[in-house]
Amino acid sequence: MSDDRQTPVDELRQLVRTFVAERNWESFHNPKNLAMSLSIEAGELMEHFQWLSLDEARRRAADPQHREAIADEVADCLAYVLAMADAVGLDLSTELRRKMIKNADKYPLEPRDPSTD
Amino acid sequence: MSDDRQTPVDELRQLVRTFVAERNWESFHNPKNLAMSLSIEAGELMEHFQWLSLDEARRRAADPQHREAIADEVADCLAYVLAMADAVGLDLSTELRRKMIKNADKYPLEPRDPSTD
Amino acid sequence: MSDDRQTPVDELRQLVRTFVAERNWESFHNPKNLAMSLSIEAGELMEHFQWLSLDEARRRAADPQHREAIADEVADCLAYVLAMADAVGLDLSTELRRKMIKNADKYPLEPRDPSTD
Amino acid sequence: MSDDRQTPVDELRQLVRTFVAERNWESFHNPKNLAMSLSIEAGELMEHFQWLSLDEARRRAADPQHREAIADEVADCLAYVLAMADAVGLDLSTELRRKMIKNADKYPLEPRDPSTD
Repeated sequence: MSDDRQTPVDELRQLVRTFVAERNWESFHNPKNLAMSLSIEAGELMEHFQWLSLDEARRRAADPQHREAIADEVADCLAYVLAMADAVGLDLSTELRRKMIKNADKYPLEPRDPSTD
Repeated sequence: MSDDRQTPVDELRQLVRTFVAERNWESFHNPKNLAMSLSIEAGELMEHFQWLSLDEARRRAADPQHREAIADEVADCLAYVLAMADAVGLDLSTELRRKMIKNADKYPLEPRDPSTD
Repeated sequence: MSDDRQTPVDELRQLVRTFVAERNWESFHNPKNLAMSLSIEAGELMEHFQWLSLDEARRRAADPQHREAIADEVADCLAYVLAMADAVGLDLSTELRRKMIKNADKYPLEPRDPSTD
Repeated sequence: MSDDRQTPVDELRQLVRTFVAERNWESFHNPKNLAMSLSIEAGELMEHFQWLSLDEARRRAADPQHREAIADEVADCLAYVLAMADAVGLDLSTELRRKMIKNADKYPLEPRDPSTD
């Protein structure tokens, strides 16, 4: 798990962008189509866990026999998030930082009770 | 759109990981729950384009009045992809590169006709 | 399109219920699993229209070559709605009537302007 | 749970059809938009169970405090299945019966072992 430490987000975006451009698929990469596509891929990811308990789902994700197929679906989901960012013109790092601050406002940390220190 | 050029993928993963850890939500971040969560967020992203034609969808995504709300949903989708990678233990850069090669096999480039050069 | 005029909703529910019972799948028919399953099937239905314009989508749905595959996905979605109603113990006719009244409150009919009569 | 025994499927379809017609929404009821809408509603249904174990999900669905909100989402999902059948021109009873036969072929009943009789 070291590549993610060295790979800039834009390098992955470029990978998807080139794939799309080489096939002249830009016109298909409409925001509506891409939102649908992400949802479709999320559905394929859910299929791996559809009938499992939470414990079984965890074991399934760790099982070498299922791991690559699960990773395939996670990668496809990421590819569509990156493609959407391209189609809409969003800097994902900026947007994620902004949104996580919003999420932190929505789910504030519980204040520590100093009497229990 | 320059932050994505300098931000390693793992920095965004760390952002989500810290947020989850600070709230002691790790036990909720089960692969089954996270796949569901990604699908739910993809649904919220689709809502912005639900009744629009493809042209209208493109204009909506470019409209400053709707842009931040759309970016919020894209960021939430990304956050769950990153959280899933954490829960399952996947290096996203490695998996995306691997998957894009598989996708290229599935959708090969059309051979160029040399007579048209 | 005449069978729907004579078939009570419960007859379709019974069809799904028997199918599930014969396979001893009741324990899998948990509300969480069924909501996921419906979403997965909705994803498979979307796949038929993923890259199409609205006009193309309409033509695709009318195309005898694609019609049965589309009908298959619609039927699977219906089956999971019926299975969910069974798992949760809902009378769908009652709930739909109740919800449509709520929807009518949310989207009231525009009052007619009597001066334009 | 007795209304479903007396209500023909088409009566529910008519309820949705009238609602759509009164608002002149027929042109929005494109198969692509409706597949998306069903997926969006399935996402809202999943939200009720997003972070729950299977046991908790079952209890949540039985909890009077959550029951109506869950029923609302199930009804909305049904409404979009019915609207899709209208938009595409499908008899749902016919299609469900056909599809369940296909499903039975895919998941045959295990033959009983006569020695255990």
